[in-house]
Amino acid sequence: MRRWNGWGDSATTMELPAQGADFLQSLVGCGQVLPDASLDEVMAQVPPSRLPAHQLVSIDAETRVRHARGQSLPDWLAMRSGDFGVFPDGVAFPESAADIRQLLAWAATENVVVIAYGGGTSVAGHINPQADTRPVLTVSLARMNQLLDLDEDSLLATFGPGANGPQVENQLRARGYTLGHFPQSWELSTLGGWVASRSSGQQSLRYGRIEQLFAGGEVETFAGTWSLPCYPASAAGPDLREWVMGSEGRFGIISQVKVRVTRLPDDERFYGVFLPSWQQAQAAMRELSQARIPLSMLRLSNALETTTQLALAGHPRMIGVLEGYLGWRGCAEGKCLLTFGVTGDRRQNALSLRQAKRRLNKHGAVFTGRFLGNKWQQGRFRFPYLREALWKAGYVVDTLETATQWGNVQSLMGKIEQSLRDGLAEQGQRVHVFSHLSHVYGQGSSIYTTYVFACGKDYAQTLANWRKLKTLASQTIADNQGTISHQHGVGRDHAPWLAQEKGELGMAAIQAAVERLDPQQQLAPGVLLMDKRHD
Amino acid sequence: MRRWNGWGDSATTMELPAQGADFLQSLVGCGQVLPDASLDEVMAQVPPSRLPAHQLVSIDAETRVRHARGQSLPDWLAMRSGDFGVFPDGVAFPESAADIRQLLAWAATENVVVIAYGGGTSVAGHINPQADTRPVLTVSLARMNQLLDLDEDSLLATFGPGANGPQVENQLRARGYTLGHFPQSWELSTLGGWVASRSSGQQSLRYGRIEQLFAGGEVETFAGTWSLPCYPASAAGPDLREWVMGSEGRFGIISQVKVRVTRLPDDERFYGVFLPSWQQAQAAMRELSQARIPLSMLRLSNALETTTQLALAGHPRMIGVLEGYLGWRGCAEGKCLLTFGVTGDRRQNALSLRQAKRRLNKHGAVFTGRFLGNKWQQGRFRFPYLREALWKAGYVVDTLETATQWGNVQSLMGKIEQSLRDGLAEQGQRVHVFSHLSHVYGQGSSIYTTYVFACGKDYAQTLANWRKLKTLASQTIADNQGTISHQHGVGRDHAPWLAQEKGELGMAAIQAAVERLDPQQQLAPGVLLMDKRHD
Repeated sequence: MRRWNGWGDSATTMELPAQGADFLQSLVGCGQVLPDASLDEVMAQVPPSRLPAHQLVSIDAETRVRHARGQSLPDWLAMRSGDFGVFPDGVAFPESAADIRQLLAWAATENVVVIAYGGGTSVAGHINPQADTRPVLTVSLARMNQLLDLDEDSLLATFGPGANGPQVENQLRARGYTLGHFPQSWELSTLGGWVASRSSGQQSLRYGRIEQLFAGGEVETFAGTWSLPCYPASAAGPDLREWVMGSEGRFGIISQVKVRVTRLPDDERFYGVFLPSWQQAQAAMRELSQARIPLSMLRLSNALETTTQLALAGHPRMIGVLEGYLGWRGCAEGKCLLTFGVTGDRRQNALSLRQAKRRLNKHGAVFTGRFLGNKWQQGRFRFPYLREALWKAGYVVDTLETATQWGNVQSLMGKIEQSLRDGLAEQGQRVHVFSHLSHVYGQGSSIYTTYVFACGKDYAQTLANWRKLKTLASQTIADNQGTISHQHGVGRDHAPWLAQEKGELGMAAIQAAVERLDPQQQLAPGVLLMDKRHD
Repeated sequence: MRRWNGWGDSATTMELPAQGADFLQSLVGCGQVLPDASLDEVMAQVPPSRLPAHQLVSIDAETRVRHARGQSLPDWLAMRSGDFGVFPDGVAFPESAADIRQLLAWAATENVVVIAYGGGTSVAGHINPQADTRPVLTVSLARMNQLLDLDEDSLLATFGPGANGPQVENQLRARGYTLGHFPQSWELSTLGGWVASRSSGQQSLRYGRIEQLFAGGEVETFAGTWSLPCYPASAAGPDLREWVMGSEGRFGIISQVKVRVTRLPDDERFYGVFLPSWQQAQAAMRELSQARIPLSMLRLSNALETTTQLALAGHPRMIGVLEGYLGWRGCAEGKCLLTFGVTGDRRQNALSLRQAKRRLNKHGAVFTGRFLGNKWQQGRFRFPYLREALWKAGYVVDTLETATQWGNVQSLMGKIEQSLRDGLAEQGQRVHVFSHLSHVYGQGSSIYTTYVFACGKDYAQTLANWRKLKTLASQTIADNQGTISHQHGVGRDHAPWLAQEKGELGMAAIQAAVERLDPQQQLAPGVLLMDKRHD
């Protein structure tokens, strides 16, 4: 069963190897284990629902607990401490667009706040109900998860918005197709959520971001049904798909999603390569992404991430042999692991591989074959489970991400890492920080930074420490030509920095469109656009 | 010098070969030559300007005539007849964003309507001033045509909005780069216009549409300067570049454009291939576009376009030999010409070519080497000059375009062609109609249809005939899952069909954003969103 207070299915666990724990302790000190609240304790806190009865709405305590929070670190601390604050007054499980329309009509009459809920995997506070004089209804799209139509001529699939990654892929694979969208949250996150928050998957280099995959669909709003037409391309005015993508539930509830699919590839391979230094590694990465070689995945860990991955891998003897070999080949201190993949036609893949190797060799790459590539592939959705293992050892881990142009990548990565590394110096606490580049573009790259620190003496202290770090890093990003999010969206946690990015007029344009479709501000107030009532 | 009443430079002419004229006469009857007005006659009609004096604004008659119309067929008829209707009251030539801001401030004070003008190549009535109680100022961006910055690390170029195709490419090529955006209007159309109207170029298969090339920039509005940030990708809310692209001057005047550029390719080749029938040709085209073979251009003429091109080519003996060879190889009646290109790395191009040939062979393709590909390349921007030659023979030619999913391409193409072919049957007039597919996508393709008919007894009759045809074809597109424009935008001519595509709520959202930034509706009223005052 899905964990009520953490990531994934409770049957899946991940252990922190002994050397990993030692490594961490040497970097950030001893862990501080905080006590977990039980589900029963939390359920006992759930107040009576303020909603009138409705046949599509559950108001039982467990359902409300299970839909109250996402997967941000503050959410994690809320779930572990049991200090949830606000619960939704009820959770609806519509099975059709007609059900959604019925719920919205009812919400309009009853003056109810409505929050769309996909997989509950937001790491930016998208789905958390806020204190409001109005009752709050969370609308789970979990039951709208079917492949409704597949147009094989046009490579278009129509889905319910609640289909999660495995549901999308299993239904398509049975017919010989793939969507190819694999965010790290893939096991739980949903198509509707990917659209609403502009998700990007690990193989975006081949398949594109959700912006390239989302072809059209339907949104149920308080003003009626909004149909987004489905053309291969159009010059007929602003592209309204691009208004809905990133709207984060502020316009309405996505009730149907059409996506562009691909026939399953003949051939797919992932490789691991070490580069001697960050300078050489980043130059190689930029060259590969600008040369238009049709690779399907590129990921470059900086030296600290490389070291951390090797330390946490849990095979000290094998890693020792690898390190020895790499050192002999000139990749010692400061080496960086680059993982890349080819996907598609065999002949094309063979050429792409040769072209990539030729360019990597110029930068001093040491190939280690497919072993590390296969490891990456096997573990590609496992990272979120690590949070559980670290928590049990008294540590918290969080990630943040941005994107910027190539000329600014190294500088911005350095500044973000520094802001986090020094962020708790006043408290005398160390923070372990490392980064990788993935989702590369001709123009630039995303930067994905992970930071680990020991829990504070209590939950309040731990949350305050996180907030300090998050604020420092977010301000660093906003001040240094980074977007406040490359793949996780804005939610509530990034909303304070959005205006710096979009500008006053950009915010005004979005606000005007939102107010036109949701005049009573009933949809996810405070998400994306800050709630002015709370200013 | 640029023609004041037609396309391009007056030094460039194109002749209709004798066999071409015969061919046309056999299809649509004798031409009807209508008398051309002289520039002097038109200038004499220009009324006094209603604008107060301003140092950036010209009010001389010739300048106002030269900025009054675009290149749609109604524009052509207006320019040839001399019956312009409305002229702008003045034309401004700003040299900087500060000049634009100054002009907008003045326009706000003086209650002036403002129309942004790039290359004057609109084929949908974007830049035509309408009768208005307020004076109308056209703002030409022609003097803001410089490459302002080139970031070679990030492959980003910053331009003034008024740079036309040759100005963009010449400034980039001198540094070893290309934008790769080549619409047929390339000689005259501008970067700002491409962005404002969502242009697509002939090699969009490699370089992308303007949506993929436009990285950010600045828009001067009545509410202030709107800066669009420049990230490789972002999940921070709706993508506001996508609000400005297609806004057609309704939000403001684009004052700076950042674009993603590419290093000049090592190798580029174009090939011509004949397929025996439309069924086989379309299947080949779809397969090539869905197989992700990195081609740079694909264009498929239907049988009528193929026949027409060969007839108008003007080398009857050579064409005879070619036809003989093709017939012997199984491509006779009903054959279709497919042109394709490879651009980039030599080894990749060699593989792409082999892969493309293998797939084309399955569909019965007959290769004719690079001759027809080279012909296409040499003549790629020449088609608009043909209008002049046809006009002198008493014919008018117009084009329209849409895009739809693959499953609907053949059906929609047939319906559009039929609507035009039969459109003047009541008048006893025949219309010659043919189409090609270009700008292909995995999901579908654009359809580009050309129609030729003899002028009526006078200008009014000719315009009425055009309006009938345009209305029939536009309604056919809107009723049959086509977008009202794939690459030319909405302007005034397509505006009546936009709501059918965007839906009532989509239109309301756009309207809300426009009203927020231009509360007095001073910017290009009636473009994109129909002018409600005239309903």
